[in-house]
Amino acid sequence: MATQGQVITCKAAVAWEANKPLVVEDVQVAPPQAGEVRVKVLFTALCHTDAYTWSGKDPEGLFPCILGHEAAGIVESVGEGVTEVQPGDHVIPCYQAECRECKFCKSGKTNLCGKVRAATGVGVMMNDRKSRFSVNGKPIYHFMGTSTFSQYTVVHDVSVAKIDPKAPLEKVCLLGCGVPTGLGAVWNTAKVESGSIVAVFGLGTVGLAVAEGAKAAGASRIIGIDIDSKKFDRAKTFGVTEFVNPKEHDKPIQQVLVDLTDGGVDYSFECIGNVSVMRAALECCHKGWGTSVIVGVAASGQEICTRPFQLVTGRVWKGTAFGGFKSRSQVPWLVDKYMKKEIKVDEYITHNLSLGEINEAFHLLHGGDCLRCVLSMD
Amino acid sequence: MATQGQVITCKAAVAWEANKPLVVEDVQVAPPQAGEVRVKVLFTALCHTDAYTWSGKDPEGLFPCILGHEAAGIVESVGEGVTEVQPGDHVIPCYQAECRECKFCKSGKTNLCGKVRAATGVGVMMNDRKSRFSVNGKPIYHFMGTSTFSQYTVVHDVSVAKIDPKAPLEKVCLLGCGVPTGLGAVWNTAKVESGSIVAVFGLGTVGLAVAEGAKAAGASRIIGIDIDSKKFDRAKTFGVTEFVNPKEHDKPIQQVLVDLTDGGVDYSFECIGNVSVMRAALECCHKGWGTSVIVGVAASGQEICTRPFQLVTGRVWKGTAFGGFKSRSQVPWLVDKYMKKEIKVDEYITHNLSLGEINEAFHLLHGGDCLRCVLSMD
Repeated sequence: MATQGQVITCKAAVAWEANKPLVVEDVQVAPPQAGEVRVKVLFTALCHTDAYTWSGKDPEGLFPCILGHEAAGIVESVGEGVTEVQPGDHVIPCYQAECRECKFCKSGKTNLCGKVRAATGVGVMMNDRKSRFSVNGKPIYHFMGTSTFSQYTVVHDVSVAKIDPKAPLEKVCLLGCGVPTGLGAVWNTAKVESGSIVAVFGLGTVGLAVAEGAKAAGASRIIGIDIDSKKFDRAKTFGVTEFVNPKEHDKPIQQVLVDLTDGGVDYSFECIGNVSVMRAALECCHKGWGTSVIVGVAASGQEICTRPFQLVTGRVWKGTAFGGFKSRSQVPWLVDKYMKKEIKVDEYITHNLSLGEINEAFHLLHGGDCLRCVLSMD
Repeated sequence: MATQGQVITCKAAVAWEANKPLVVEDVQVAPPQAGEVRVKVLFTALCHTDAYTWSGKDPEGLFPCILGHEAAGIVESVGEGVTEVQPGDHVIPCYQAECRECKFCKSGKTNLCGKVRAATGVGVMMNDRKSRFSVNGKPIYHFMGTSTFSQYTVVHDVSVAKIDPKAPLEKVCLLGCGVPTGLGAVWNTAKVESGSIVAVFGLGTVGLAVAEGAKAAGASRIIGIDIDSKKFDRAKTFGVTEFVNPKEHDKPIQQVLVDLTDGGVDYSFECIGNVSVMRAALECCHKGWGTSVIVGVAASGQEICTRPFQLVTGRVWKGTAFGGFKSRSQVPWLVDKYMKKEIKVDEYITHNLSLGEINEAFHLLHGGDCLRCVLSMD
């Protein structure tokens, strides 16, 4: 390609400061170095983690940066030594890397990968500990190793999944974060069995994906909990069978659920990021075997608490990141499942805007009606 | 037997009030009612849970009561409908019942049993919600459904395990609580695999049984943590391979262990009952897969806390009661393992006294040298 080895100037939404509107700027994107891949991003969705870092509440947030981590695109060029993708491949950037070589990847026990974390955690690339983005010579930090709010981004080769080129990128971009997180929390982390009673706290994208995953796993009851009753009708189409609005009860929500289920649920999932709800999610589990999975991301510094008796009497407290899916290996499999109509994706997309409307998109994300807003990057 | 159907007057150590010396009294023990078994207790050990309730810190503690839950004896008589044991059978009373009929027993997921809990939790028997113990007509509460600090006790038939009559009762009485709790935490709750790195917090009886269980499971490193370095030599004989005294380090103990193990341990066990140590035990686990099991019993009202990030990045927090062993089914199996010299028991017995010396025995229990003190009841 003509652009290979060249700096590309393109549009990107830059977060210059915490909590200030993003600015669509002309950004210079340097060519990929060894082990790196430059991707033309065609569609990106917005996720609450972007909003969290943007808000300034994330102590690890670095500014100025280019946010975004749920996207799909096409490889523009690759750096030295990159063998698993080539220009023209359709890909999904993966904030959770998979190197297949580190202690984590080889353990067979986790999807976390240690290879590039030290660089992506501080907004740079491994090779030279520098950013590939700049505006008029001023470096702009990467975010989560993906930075998909840019028409072009550079990612590590261990952070990109090659997918079926027939898959519609404007849909499967969602398989970069929220939907797999919910499905995987059920299938990989909790391993919900047929007949189980499941509680889902928070009926946003991740919570609905949990419900969808639980339905696919054969759960007998899927109880959705949300303080916004308007979400209940939509949730039914994702598999939720019963609804509880904590605001309509005087008793603590864990007690409401224990009463409703003859002792508690078999599995619960916290999909909000609220530490009080995390406690309730644990304590609504059945004595002896109930398992609670933390899926939501709590604000920095907050802590979860409970009486140890809750665990001594058999409850299990776990968490999940990207639903336990190995990104490069399993995102393509999820894309295939979507193409075979075995999992929903389209149904999570409530809004479509363009990169220039990104601030409006963030505004929508905070309303109860929006699940996912997909931005076209052209 | 001549005593069958009769009230038996015998010696028992009565806790009249919290934190006051136990008094060995002549106690009247009523005959067993339907579904009950009267046991002549021959040997009982003391456990920290007895001491905890005795101290008055247990809000569910009821006085006056007869404590004790780690013992062995011989069935004296049985009530109507009792079929699984008969007079003369050698038995171990089980504070954790196993009815094989309730939701818990039939779940296949837990050793907790719901059948008699509502009665044993408030110091009485199921049949008539009354005690079988009295002193001059004044009822004395049962404790944990066992009350083994008496020459005769009455237990529910679901709370007694029939064992090999060749087993020495003065030894296998320990299989009523502490030793199975530690072994089972490793084998049933954590399911430690060969090659694992294990941390054990607290090197009392339960912690040493954890070490023994971990050694049997093939753990590659077993790190014992205790603030009393004198315990280290003895711990080696139970399988501990390395020792850490938190008092000898400036860094938090979780950091010391993470540094010592290239990222954290695979499994940790809290065998003290201290909520700060429970947190350290979780946080010294390896990211991605480390599992921490709470074995110790914390004081009432205390809470465990951590950042949810600890779980989201793959650590698992669990607990165990009686090591997950199904009491009536598996205590006889543990006795058989002892008889085949596959598990230690004798080595945990550091002191032997008689019922009349029970206050001295409690005093010994609080010293660092004592693991288990076994009382002969004659």
